[in-house]
Order: sequence, then structure tokens, then C-alpha cells
Amino acid sequence: MTTLHGLPVAPRQRRDVPAFHHSVDVVVVGFGAAGTCAAYEAASAGASVLVLERTGGAGGAAALAEGILYLGGGTPTQVAAGVTDTPEAMEAYLLAACGPAPDRAKIAAYVAGSLEHHQFLCDRGIEFQPTIDAETQMAPKGTDGLVWSGGENAWPFTEVAAPAPRGHLAKTVRSTGWLLMKTLAEAAVAAGAVVAYDTRVERLILDGDVVVGIEATRYGEPFFVEAASVVLCAGGFIYNDAMVEAYAPELLRGTWKVGTEGDDGRGIAMAMAIGAATKSMHAGEVSLPIIPPRRLVEGILVNGQGQRFINEDTYMGRVGQAALYEHDATCYLIVDEAAYTPNWMGLEATWVCESVEELEREMGLPEGALAATVDLYNRHASLGEDPQFHKAADYVRPLVPPLGAFDLRPGIAPYAPFTLGGLSTTVDGEVLHLNGSVIPGLYAAGRTTSGVCSFGYASGLSIGDSTYFGRLAGRRAATKL
Amino acid sequence: MTTLHGLPVAPRQRRDVPAFHHSVDVVVVGFGAAGTCAAYEAASAGASVLVLERTGGAGGAAALAEGILYLGGGTPTQVAAGVTDTPEAMEAYLLAACGPAPDRAKIAAYVAGSLEHHQFLCDRGIEFQPTIDAETQMAPKGTDGLVWSGGENAWPFTEVAAPAPRGHLAKTVRSTGWLLMKTLAEAAVAAGAVVAYDTRVERLILDGDVVVGIEATRYGEPFFVEAASVVLCAGGFIYNDAMVEAYAPELLRGTWKVGTEGDDGRGIAMAMAIGAATKSMHAGEVSLPIIPPRRLVEGILVNGQGQRFINEDTYMGRVGQAALYEHDATCYLIVDEAAYTPNWMGLEATWVCESVEELEREMGLPEGALAATVDLYNRHASLGEDPQFHKAADYVRPLVPPLGAFDLRPGIAPYAPFTLGGLSTTVDGEVLHLNGSVIPGLYAAGRTTSGVCSFGYASGLSIGDSTYFGRLAGRRAATKL
Repeated sequence: MTTLHGLPVAPRQRRDVPAFHHSVDVVVVGFGAAGTCAAYEAASAGASVLVLERTGGAGGAAALAEGILYLGGGTPTQVAAGVTDTPEAMEAYLLAACGPAPDRAKIAAYVAGSLEHHQFLCDRGIEFQPTIDAETQMAPKGTDGLVWSGGENAWPFTEVAAPAPRGHLAKTVRSTGWLLMKTLAEAAVAAGAVVAYDTRVERLILDGDVVVGIEATRYGEPFFVEAASVVLCAGGFIYNDAMVEAYAPELLRGTWKVGTEGDDGRGIAMAMAIGAATKSMHAGEVSLPIIPPRRLVEGILVNGQGQRFINEDTYMGRVGQAALYEHDATCYLIVDEAAYTPNWMGLEATWVCESVEELEREMGLPEGALAATVDLYNRHASLGEDPQFHKAADYVRPLVPPLGAFDLRPGIAPYAPFTLGGLSTTVDGEVLHLNGSVIPGLYAAGRTTSGVCSFGYASGLSIGDSTYFGRLAGRRAATKL
Repeated sequence: MTTLHGLPVAPRQRRDVPAFHHSVDVVVVGFGAAGTCAAYEAASAGASVLVLERTGGAGGAAALAEGILYLGGGTPTQVAAGVTDTPEAMEAYLLAACGPAPDRAKIAAYVAGSLEHHQFLCDRGIEFQPTIDAETQMAPKGTDGLVWSGGENAWPFTEVAAPAPRGHLAKTVRSTGWLLMKTLAEAAVAAGAVVAYDTRVERLILDGDVVVGIEATRYGEPFFVEAASVVLCAGGFIYNDAMVEAYAPELLRGTWKVGTEGDDGRGIAMAMAIGAATKSMHAGEVSLPIIPPRRLVEGILVNGQGQRFINEDTYMGRVGQAALYEHDATCYLIVDEAAYTPNWMGLEATWVCESVEELEREMGLPEGALAATVDLYNRHASLGEDPQFHKAADYVRPLVPPLGAFDLRPGIAPYAPFTLGGLSTTVDGEVLHLNGSVIPGLYAAGRTTSGVCSFGYASGLSIGDSTYFGRLAGRRAATKL
């Protein structure tokens, strides 16, 4: 028998509920990036809001994350940092970066709302320092508020749109994800949302085909909540190996899961169990965090055949996806002395040799393969060009032996995956049935849904779309009052 | 709003059925490879069987196909042809070829049942001529009954298991798929199954959580069938662009859909609508039928960067999958005069040049890239070796200019996809709920399910597992009498 999800996700009919413990306008499942924002907006709209959070505290995966928010189109932070950006450039970039089959409606809404969402965050007390750290695609060491978090300044996106750094980070000396979530959780509570911690949802409650509440477990006992609207903000499924195997088996080779144990997919599965449609369940972000320092991209990345396969200066999530989905998770970084340094996490060259021939032999690559790759690369690099993979000229120069190679295979290098697929929803967070209709009473946001990223990714898009569409879902859920 | 499947798949409760037009033990949906076999076995077990077929005739996609059946482990046809094969070798091959995350239970059952299934087909009147056509991986021009249909005699499978040809074809001068389906349909009817043609199913009928029948449309009117068991053998979803976009967007670039308009995914979707689990919905077989003739594989396949990416002598489905999923559907075959000939479908070299430098310029490849590839290939080929991609020595020799290149991009070459993902079922065809339980009254087989192929494929596995697991599902469905 196929191993399955092992979650008790079949719905319960209202007539089978002995008694409801609570009755509210809006119940929000999960108090992470999407849930805090949904709860804030629903409560601000006047709804009575109960949040069910399975852990003992707020924040979800976002509180453990670097907390980058992908925002642009000319935010005040960008403008103050001297960055030129437009909504058109941001949208063109996202359409190119988030495919194949990008969700055009969500991308359009996300771009259109970006300045307002930036303001919303600032109004809650988040400060973005208007300076850029160009060295990293992740959180800076300092308090710079902007990073190039999606390869906007590298091929192919340079051919698609004027590049701009759009990764926004809250100013703090501690984790920005923690600060962001602390701020948003406090805002939700201040707006009137009530949070029940240590409360794990189990299944939806239906009246016919209408969602009218949710069943949870609290202190070992069933806990029934009646609600006009249920908003699922329960994260993704990277911590459910059976679901990952069924939908995105490539991610099983990821070594460093991004998320919490709560990302077991139950929010997705309990909606699927009543006919909710999903999208892009095979998609996963897979960061392979090689840099900083950025000068490492003066080297070349090769696969198990000693071939290059991507421009090294692109977003590391694109490198990780390509390595894991397309190159059998086999990847090496070849550098010379001028480019060499241990990377930010202390990874060092596994092999160092006087010649490329010796190096490929040590690495066990096919004879002559790496030499052919380096020869071709160097021939173009001596002209400052990379016609095969289009690395930017700044990082293109011939590699000079001795050469070193970082072993970037799983188990040695971290592949940091999380799931991007989830429920199909409207822009306003209504969950869609397989037949195309809206499921009455059910809303979702965050990684419980398929968001702006159908497959491709940039850092900050998950917390970005979770918070933004979490707000829209909370607002729409409250309109049923 | 995300484009969705547009199928009226939400279930109907029994109390909402005005009256049943028929009441039977077993209703089988679809009269193709899986449905004919399910109906045969259920009727043979004594059940009253009604088949609902949306078209005016039997056969489904299989009747349009080449009709290869993947069988092995030492079938009488193999033995008479002088082929040595064992169940162990067949199982080892399938575990390697059908992953990642192969369905071990289904593969084990399929291997264990292979000789009996061969006998079952022979007993119905199918004749397999015990001769091998080594030139093709598809249907032979003649009446040879065996082909190498899965790259068993090429790397990496030669390192996994003793190779054997396992693609079995019924002896006929007409399409073997047609003959196979004619035979199986007649067998089902002879066993007592009744077929309602021109009858399209719409939704499952439930009594609580138990499947008790199915609603169809017949001559424009609702048609309600009550049944102790419903067996969904309704094909895959390659003809539903919205489903393909949601689950397997890479396949949208396939130019030559393999299936019928009936492969709109409704069998899968109507079960999903009651909580059925799915597996491998992103998987698609994508044949890129370059050969015959086989000598074309003396050339080399390169991607848009002028790099080789696979051993050219492997199964063409592996080439098509790699090109479409991993190389942006950009693929060229480079040949010299000794290897050159128009292929079986009349595809000719798009470019012919005196030198590799001229050829790469004409093709628009990065300067020097193809030359580097040919140089490296030729260097090893002069020793009869291919250490980079492991093409068998028989096909490895240096390429001598002038060189020609076949343009194998979609629109020029056919990419022939069909979907491999579908419902999660037990070996006996019981449909599994997301929570891991069996959905009472519901069975499925064929491309409505995820079968022995989780992702990788060999020709003959779809009709092979559809007919075999169709039989098991029909038999199990009849045990509820």
C-alpha cells in the first residue's frame, strides 16, 4: 500500500458535533506569517476572531526565518536607498521568475498592493533601513534593509526587467523574522484577536457542503469551534515525508528542511478532503546557500558530468532547484585562489589540485570533462564573456590553477527545501473546489496555498505573499458577518 | 482566479438521487485497457457488471496506441525467442526505471503476476510471435513480438539488472493496440459485462462516506446507476489543459498528446472531490521518438548550451522527459554522414555543415560549445568509450565532419506526453483516502491511478499495468457481492 499522509482529515458533519466550545465570526488556523495578518485584518474589520495555534507561541516558520519580505515597485525604503524600481519591472520579473505557469492574478495583485503593504508594515512599527547589502542574497550581517534576493541583477532577469533589490528586512540586531512576527502577532492581539495556543486542528466541520467550523485537539480533548469563516494559515508540508513523497519526491533529498514540525500539510489535506483544488504540489524552493561572500561566484558550478549548468551569479534558490530537480543533486563549485575563501557557513574546498586534470581525477569526474569545461569557460572569460550561461561580466575572468572544488552534494552542503504547492485560492483567499466554484466558508493563505510562486522563487516571496494574502483573506473572511 | 478543471465533480448524496436507472453489483467507468479487464474479471467472478463508456466504442487510448505490453520474468514468448529473463531482473529494472519514489508494492505485484498475465492474454486469443525487433523501441514494422522498450540494454540499467526485451506485441498486421482492445472487450462482453456506450460519468453518489453509485449523462439526460462497487478506469488527464497546468505544467509544451479527448481527468477529479489521495501528479511520460533507425544513436544529443545530457541509446521516453523537464525542451541530434538518414517519420537534418564550428554558428549555439562537446566525445570515442554518459560501445565512434543536426524542439519534433499521476490505490485497486483509509465502494485502475511508474517509464508499462491492475481491481470489486 502506498504510504499516505496519516492525518485524520476527513470532514465531520455538524450534526455529528456534540457541542461547540466556541462560536466566532472568524477562526484562523495558525499564527504565523499568514495567520497573524489574517487575524489582524479580520479583527480590525470588526469580526470576533479566534486563532488556533498548535504550538505554545506565535510566529510559525517565519519567526525562525530570516524574515525577508519581497516588496518593490518603488517602496519608500527603495527610494531612500537610491533604488529605482517600478511596479511594471517588479511584475515582469515575477512573471519570469515564478513560473512555469505563474499565477498572473496573484502576481498582479501582489505588485499592485506592494507599496500599501510596505506602509502597513511600517505603520505596525517595522523599520527598514534604506541601505543595501550587495554581498548576500540572505539576511545581512548588519542592519541593511535591502538585498538582491532573487537574482534580479543576473541573467535571465536582466533581459526581462530593470533590476532592483526588493528583499526588505526589518531593522534589528536579532533575527528579522522574529521581530516581524512579534510585531504582527502583537498587532493582531491588539486588534482584538484571541489566540488559543497548544490547539491542533484535525478536520473541517461541514453543514452539507458549507464549512461551518473546525475540530481541534486541545490538551488531549476534542475542541469544536463554530465559525462563519475558517481561514487556513497552517503552513506547508515539508515536515510530512509521506506527502512529500507523494507530491514532490525530489525534495526528500533536501537535507535542511525550512519550516517547523507544524508544516505537516494538514491544512492542505483537510481542505483537499472536501474537494479543494491544489496547484503546483511538486514545487519546492531549494536554497543552496553558497554565498556570501559573493566573490565565490567567480568560480564555476558543475554537475556530475563536469558540465556547467547555470550562471553562478543567479539566486541560490535557482541553483538549488536546478541541482536537485535537474542534476541528480550533484553539484560542485570550482574556484581558483583569487576566488577562494571558506564560505559563510565554513564550507571549505574538499579538493585542491595543481591542475584541472588532477582535480577532475581526484573528484572522480569523467576524464577530460572538467578540463573541457574550464577551457571553454576560460576562452570566453578572457574576453569577459559567458555566452553559454550569461554570468555577469563582473564575475567572469579566466580561472587560474591551482584549483579547488567545493563538494556541494546533499549531506555535505545544505539543500534547504520548503514546499511551494498548496490550495488553489482566489486573490482574496477563497478556497476553490475542483469544480471551479468557491467553497463556502473556507479561506486560506500562506504556504497552505499556492501563492505567487508556481515553481520559481525569490527570497522574501513566501513571507511576502503570506503576509499580504493573509491580510486579504482575513478581510474577505470578515465580510461574511 | 486560478483556472480550474471545470468538471462537475462534487459528489451527490444518495438522498438527492430521484431514482436509479440501473442497479448492479459492479459499475466500471471506461472501456479501455483497465476497464475491459476489470469488467472481465468482475463478470467472471459472478458479479452483474455495467460498463459506462463515454464514446461509441470500446478501446480507449489503448486502441489508438501501439499496444505494447511490458511483461517479463521469463514469459513463454521470451523463452521461445531465446531470451533469458528472471522476475528478479525485471523487478530490479522496474525499481530503477520507475522512480524516484517507485511504488514498491505495485512493482512487486506486477512482477509476480507477469507470467500469469501473459497466460491470461494468450488464453483470450492474443498471440505473441517469439522474435525480436532490435531496431525499434516502438511497434515493429513486421510481426515481431518482442522489443527492447525501456532502455534495459543501455546505461544505467545494464548496471542494475541483466537486460531482457520485455515489450510484448500482439501478432497482427494492423495496430496491436486495436487487436488487444478488440480481444479484451469481446472477452468482457462474453463474460457477461453489459456496456452502455455514449454515457459520460459526472460524479460519484455517496451514502454518507460510502460510494454507492455514479451519476452519468446519457443522451443529454441524467443517468443514475446504483452499484455495490464503482471501478474508475477513466484514463488520465492529458486532454485537460487546466489540470495539466495545475499539476504538470511542463507537459503543456508537449505537442502530440497521447490519449483521447476522454482523458480529461474526471475520474481522478471526482475521486479527489471525496478525499481520495493522489500520487505523482507532476509525472508524465514524454516520448521523443527519434529512432528507428537505431543507427541514429551513433550521433550525440545536445541541449541549448551545446552540451550532451544523456546516453543516446537509452529509451526515447527518458530522452523526452529529460529534454522537457530538465533542458527547457531544447534538444538537437548531431550526426555525421555515416549515421545520417531521415528518421522513421521523415525528420531530416535541419542544418548540414562542413565543420562543427560552422554548424554551431548556424544553429546559434554559443561559440565553441558544440566544438568542445564533439572534441571531448570524439577523444573518448576513438577508444570506444563514453565515460561521461555511458552510451554502449556499439554506438560509440568519433563523429567525422561534415555534420548534420536534427532540430528536436517542440513544434518540429513531436513530444508525445501522457500523464502518469493519479489516484493512490492499493495493489487490489482500492482507492485510498488522504487519511490512509480505504474509501468504501471505490476502486480504480489504469491511468486514473498512479501505477507502477511514479515518474520514470518504459513503453508497455501503461497498458501493462492498466490491464493487470484492472483485472485485480475488477476481481476485488466483485468480492463485495
